[in-house]
Amino acid sequence: MLEELKEQVCRANLELSESGLVILSWGNVSGIDRNKGIFAIKPSGVDYAKLRPEDIVLVRLDGEKVEGDMKPSSDTPTHLELYRQWGGIGGVCHTHSPCATAYAQAETELPCLGTTHADHFYGTVPVTRKISKEEIENDYELNTGKVICERFKGIEPETIPAVFCAGHGPFTWGKNAAESVKNGIVLEMACKMGLDTMSLSGKMQAISQTLLDKHYLRKHGKDAYYGQN
Amino acid sequence: MLEELKEQVCRANLELSESGLVILSWGNVSGIDRNKGIFAIKPSGVDYAKLRPEDIVLVRLDGEKVEGDMKPSSDTPTHLELYRQWGGIGGVCHTHSPCATAYAQAETELPCLGTTHADHFYGTVPVTRKISKEEIENDYELNTGKVICERFKGIEPETIPAVFCAGHGPFTWGKNAAESVKNGIVLEMACKMGLDTMSLSGKMQAISQTLLDKHYLRKHGKDAYYGQN
Amino acid sequence: MLEELKEQVCRANLELSESGLVILSWGNVSGIDRNKGIFAIKPSGVDYAKLRPEDIVLVRLDGEKVEGDMKPSSDTPTHLELYRQWGGIGGVCHTHSPCATAYAQAETELPCLGTTHADHFYGTVPVTRKISKEEIENDYELNTGKVICERFKGIEPETIPAVFCAGHGPFTWGKNAAESVKNGIVLEMACKMGLDTMSLSGKMQAISQTLLDKHYLRKHGKDAYYGQN
Amino acid sequence: MLEELKEQVCRANLELSESGLVILSWGNVSGIDRNKGIFAIKPSGVDYAKLRPEDIVLVRLDGEKVEGDMKPSSDTPTHLELYRQWGGIGGVCHTHSPCATAYAQAETELPCLGTTHADHFYGTVPVTRKISKEEIENDYELNTGKVICERFKGIEPETIPAVFCAGHGPFTWGKNAAESVKNGIVLEMACKMGLDTMSLSGKMQAISQTLLDKHYLRKHGKDAYYGQN
Repeated sequence: MLEELKEQVCRANLELSESGLVILSWGNVSGIDRNKGIFAIKPSGVDYAKLRPEDIVLVRLDGEKVEGDMKPSSDTPTHLELYRQWGGIGGVCHTHSPCATAYAQAETELPCLGTTHADHFYGTVPVTRKISKEEIENDYELNTGKVICERFKGIEPETIPAVFCAGHGPFTWGKNAAESVKNGIVLEMACKMGLDTMSLSGKMQAISQTLLDKHYLRKHGKDAYYGQN
Repeated sequence: MLEELKEQVCRANLELSESGLVILSWGNVSGIDRNKGIFAIKPSGVDYAKLRPEDIVLVRLDGEKVEGDMKPSSDTPTHLELYRQWGGIGGVCHTHSPCATAYAQAETELPCLGTTHADHFYGTVPVTRKISKEEIENDYELNTGKVICERFKGIEPETIPAVFCAGHGPFTWGKNAAESVKNGIVLEMACKMGLDTMSLSGKMQAISQTLLDKHYLRKHGKDAYYGQN
Repeated sequence: MLEELKEQVCRANLELSESGLVILSWGNVSGIDRNKGIFAIKPSGVDYAKLRPEDIVLVRLDGEKVEGDMKPSSDTPTHLELYRQWGGIGGVCHTHSPCATAYAQAETELPCLGTTHADHFYGTVPVTRKISKEEIENDYELNTGKVICERFKGIEPETIPAVFCAGHGPFTWGKNAAESVKNGIVLEMACKMGLDTMSLSGKMQAISQTLLDKHYLRKHGKDAYYGQN
Repeated sequence: MLEELKEQVCRANLELSESGLVILSWGNVSGIDRNKGIFAIKPSGVDYAKLRPEDIVLVRLDGEKVEGDMKPSSDTPTHLELYRQWGGIGGVCHTHSPCATAYAQAETELPCLGTTHADHFYGTVPVTRKISKEEIENDYELNTGKVICERFKGIEPETIPAVFCAGHGPFTWGKNAAESVKNGIVLEMACKMGLDTMSLSGKMQAISQTLLDKHYLRKHGKDAYYGQN
């Protein structure tokens, strides 16, 4: 069932591992079939070296597992909530990549410091508020998703496909699983650059809205002219 | 004798080398057979590229070598002391991995800054006191172990399987040799994140006890739900 | 047409990718045939893993594409302007390499901090001024080239083959495509060293003009004695 | 002539390249046959990928080339001076490895911050004074060697086989070419740890003389007990 989706999600998880963003069995990527209302996600705690498409778990948008011998990622309810609230996304990626996690731990937003950022994220990558004691003790992973969506009130998630969860790490998303991983890779690089930029200048100052518009819009939307399309 | 243990310890040492945590012939990993009261450890100063299971040295808990053509690691008495004092551990790993060694050199503890840490260490990774002149001059390696155990009075070593030895480097442990290496890898990553977190925020502030409990306990103990078991 | 040039430019782009300076499809390298007034450049947004010499696009110095099935890099007008203004250069390289991009984002010049720098760049690597709203909104990529050339008034571009574009990233150049990539690699390393030098000493202080002369001139010009020529 | 020495020196240069300490054609390693008063050194500006034992150049201690089709490294007179002044060394290595070069550029000594350092260097790794205008303009490379030897007055070079040349980079040495490279690798790692230690603690504080003695002497000298000898 949904063999192609499972294949894509498996490959996206392997790309995450090969990118160096994650070590051990950290991180998880999912992708959704919107017509069927089913998403495919990495099984919990499985070694990337052994991951095969048939290991990928299928989960319905009401949270029920519909296929797979293994338990899905323990972060499944977070992915679920993002898919439910944001109809426009097709893939979600969670990592503990080191520089992005440092931003999450420091609860520091990443303003658009340059065109590398502007090419992929249309403005500041935000930090969630701290998740509360009650939210941790009851349905922690679901509430992680809710706290992310709360932070994006007034922001279109497709335009800034990344967030730092306070004290935790980054989530990224995209139109499919592969793009969510790509956004995780870009976020890690933008965070590394941000750390060094602050080390040099003592501050993090955003580029102008005009330059942000230019770079974001030459890659996204109807007037994009980057790439071959 | 104890062929499987020697094989496991050899493999764990090679994993340490492949992880990039150590260069040259630095670092050493051991694992113990509690029934026989014998542990297996890397020989001293041997090139990882040439290490084979038959090179692994077997040592009794009274410190006597029971098998092996080579001299055991010069840090053997440190491993010995940890095994003697802490009946619940099955493997010990010592590295000079760069970020963790910086914490040891700076004599800076690593509080639980985020869930990456909380997933593996149930609270602050402590620093030992400085080892004294007398302790250095007589049985230095044994006293290194004693100073570690002294620091863990009141802490269950299984819950925080890592320490920074002041002016020296990290030791990690686990239920077997492989897990002690894994904890060394996680510690290095947590220290890298800690360095960047402090660089961003100017401080190192722990996450809440509730979030620490949640992450630690979803991976450890009877109510764990991470992974496939 | 110009098969050898396309081959060289393809190889230089692959070297850029293999050097680790760029991730994803970031970056672009070009090389020019001055006799024909035609330069060869990477197509826009193409995966390095799939790049072949026949994909390289040929562009005339008046901006017209003369060969190639694909669209040239969106940064083509920047390369064009550098070739038009600076008759002595034969290759141009643009990256978002992390340390050099941090300098660009922090709008911080890189003085000649040591002989590593002096071996390749004859003085401070400059930062451009911020590009204006009007320059962004009309012919942004061409204006990027103009702002670079403006910054080099009074500087011979062959002697300092690198610049930081404010809020953007580095451009480097050289006598051909391969050398422009090599200068990009050296710039990234000099920036990494610069970051660590400032972290240690709290300042960035240039070496003496005599030491700069010595190192630059033992590698460049008629009295050079480095290498086999 | 001296085929085994050339083979050793070639291999040591390749190890330097594989260690990641150098990029491009940077760095050079030499080794000496004290009986013949001849040393073997890397040719100038040659690609490591193409380096073969027959490319290694043989030079007499009076500075005359005695074998080799290529010009020796432009740093040859520095190596020569170290061999002439220090009869106890058998190999010399020069790199621009990034962290050690940052120390050289910042003119910051590296005190013995921990046992990683103590295992290899018996005390502070010193920085030379700035080389003068006159010393640069006449026999620069020879004077580089003289300035190093001047800095080591009162220090046995065998016990601290490393120096930072102000504004330039590190030189390391050892009993042969391979050991000089190994000391270069250790120095780079000690410098990386030093940068992070200072970032954490705001200072660089040496460990006690007793701990330095213990670690240095368990690896060096007649009472050493590290390794298999």
